[in-house]
Amino acid sequence: MDKIAVIGAGLIGRGWAIVFARAGLHVDLYDIDPDALPRSMATLGRNLEDLARFELIDEAPDAVLARIKPVTSLADAVADARYIQENALERIDVKRQVFAVLDAAAGPDAVIASSASFAPVSSFAADLAGRQRCLVAHPVNPPYLIPVVELVPGPWTDETVLERTRELMQRVGQKPVVIRQEVYGFVLNRLQAALLNEAFRLVEDGVTTPEELDVTVSDGLGLRWSFMGPFETIDLNAPGGILDYAERARGPMYTLAQEQRDAREWSPALVDKILAARRSAQPETGLGETQEWRDRRLMALAAHKASAVRDVPKQT
Amino acid sequence: MDKIAVIGAGLIGRGWAIVFARAGLHVDLYDIDPDALPRSMATLGRNLEDLARFELIDEAPDAVLARIKPVTSLADAVADARYIQENALERIDVKRQVFAVLDAAAGPDAVIASSASFAPVSSFAADLAGRQRCLVAHPVNPPYLIPVVELVPGPWTDETVLERTRELMQRVGQKPVVIRQEVYGFVLNRLQAALLNEAFRLVEDGVTTPEELDVTVSDGLGLRWSFMGPFETIDLNAPGGILDYAERARGPMYTLAQEQRDAREWSPALVDKILAARRSAQPETGLGETQEWRDRRLMALAAHKASAVRDVPKQT
Repeated sequence: MDKIAVIGAGLIGRGWAIVFARAGLHVDLYDIDPDALPRSMATLGRNLEDLARFELIDEAPDAVLARIKPVTSLADAVADARYIQENALERIDVKRQVFAVLDAAAGPDAVIASSASFAPVSSFAADLAGRQRCLVAHPVNPPYLIPVVELVPGPWTDETVLERTRELMQRVGQKPVVIRQEVYGFVLNRLQAALLNEAFRLVEDGVTTPEELDVTVSDGLGLRWSFMGPFETIDLNAPGGILDYAERARGPMYTLAQEQRDAREWSPALVDKILAARRSAQPETGLGETQEWRDRRLMALAAHKASAVRDVPKQT
Repeated sequence: MDKIAVIGAGLIGRGWAIVFARAGLHVDLYDIDPDALPRSMATLGRNLEDLARFELIDEAPDAVLARIKPVTSLADAVADARYIQENALERIDVKRQVFAVLDAAAGPDAVIASSASFAPVSSFAADLAGRQRCLVAHPVNPPYLIPVVELVPGPWTDETVLERTRELMQRVGQKPVVIRQEVYGFVLNRLQAALLNEAFRLVEDGVTTPEELDVTVSDGLGLRWSFMGPFETIDLNAPGGILDYAERARGPMYTLAQEQRDAREWSPALVDKILAARRSAQPETGLGETQEWRDRRLMALAAHKASAVRDVPKQT
C-alpha cells in the first residue's frame, strides 16, 4: 500500500531508496537510463551491507534490498505511489519537464516532492494542474546518513500535503524542518554558501591554504556543530549564555559582516588552486573510494551519536 | 625546565592548563583574582576526571593536576617560563596593558602568545620592546577538546618564535595552523561569522526558527564538517569531484553571495527572539551544567574520532 516512487537512481535517489526501504516501505526506483538500474542495485546492496556492519539496520541487507524494485517505466513507478521523490538534474528546465510528466502520471492523491537543492518549487511547478500537491523535500547527501530534510512548500501547496510529507519523514527517521519562505538555497545551502564563499575568499587572498582551512573546520569549528546548532553553540560559549555572547560578539561580527560584503564569483584560477591542493591529498582515481570512506565515517558517526545520546545525557 | 605560564584562570586559561599539563609539562596558572584560583583548581579536577572516564588521559587525574600550580604572583608565574599563554579579556586596552606587563616580566627567551579571538597581535603589542617574541595563538573553546590552534604572527614576529610555538603545539597534541595575514577574526571566526550572520538574518527574516536552524546544522550541515573540511566535503559531493561541484555550484553560490551582502548588526530584538527560543529549551540556571554536558559530548566525540581513524581507514 505505502509505495514510494523514487525518480532517478543517482547518488541522491539511491540514498532516498534506502531511507524509505529500511523503514519498511516499498520503493519503486526509476531511472531514465534503464542501464543504470542494475549498477544502482549493486551499489545499494553494498551500502546496505555497510549499514548492517555499523548496526544501523535491524534486518539483513537483502531483506531491505528486496523492498526496492528497479522499474523501467515511469508510469508504473508512479501509478499507485502515494509519495513521489524526484531527483532529476538541478536545472529548472529539467525539473519543469519532469514535474509535468509526474503530475500527469501520478494518482490524484500522490504527493510529489523534489530533491531540489536551491530552486523553490514555484520556479518549476507553478503552472501544473496539481501544483497544490508539489513541494521541495531537500535532503543532504547521503540522505540515509544525514537525517535533516528541508520541506519547502510553494505558496499554493496544500497544508495537508506539507503535513503528510512531514509525517512521512518523521516516520522513516529523518528530521524534517519546514522552511517558511521560498528563499533561494533554502536554509542549509544558504548557511553553507556563507561559509564556503568566505573560505574561497580567504584562500584567494592568501590568508590561508586549502589544507589548513580544512583542518580549521574538521579539527575546530565543525566539532561542536556535529551535535549542536550554531545558536546552542554560542549560548554555551560565554559564561552568561547567548546574551553575554551577543554583548561581546555583536561588534566583531558586524565588523566581519562588513568585510565580507564583496560578493565574488569563484574564479577558474581559484578553483584550480584548491583543486591542486585537493589532488595532492586525494588523487582523482580514488574519489569514488573516498566517497565510500566518507559514508562509512558518517555511519560510524551516526552510531556514535546514537550511543552518546544514551550515555551522555543532557539532564543528569 | 619546560615551564608554561598560563595567565588567566577562566574558561580558556583552564583549558590551556589541561592541554599543557596532560602532555607532561609544568604549568603555573595565574589569575588577577587570587580567590578565583581554588575554584579553578576544583573545576580542573572535575574536568580531568571526566577526561579519564573517556580514556582521553593515560595517567590518574591527580597526577596531571599535580603539574598545574596556582600562583598569585604574575612575576613568579612568568619568571622562568619559556612559553606564556595570555587569556585576558578580549579588549584591546586590556590586552595592551597585560602584554606590557608580560613583556617586562618575562625572560628574554620566552614566547608570549595571546588567546585573542579577533584582534591581531599588532593591535596590542606593536610598541613593546619584545614584540618580536609576541604572537596570537587562538584556541577554540574548550582547547583541550578542540585541537585546532590558529597561530598568527605580527609583521615583526621572529620566524623562530612562530616555529617554536608551532612545535610546542604539535608536541602537546594540538593542531596548529598558521594564518599568513593579520586579518581581523583570523580564519575560524571569519568562517563562523559568515555562517552566524546568515543564521541571524534567516531568523530575522522569518525564513526559519532558531530551533529549526540549529537542527539544520546539528543533524545536517555539521556532520561532515566534524571530520572533513568544507573543501574536502565539496570534493566528495559531486561524482567528478570539486571541479564538477564548482561547475554546478558556482552560479548558485554567487547568487547567494549577492543576496548575503547586506551587513546587519544583531539587533537587541533579534537577540531577544533567539534568547527566548534558547531559554525554552535551556533554562538559564542550567547553563553551567549544559556546558559540562557539551564538554562530555566533545570528549565522547574525540574518543569516537580516534577510534574511527583506526577502524575506518581512508586507504583500504
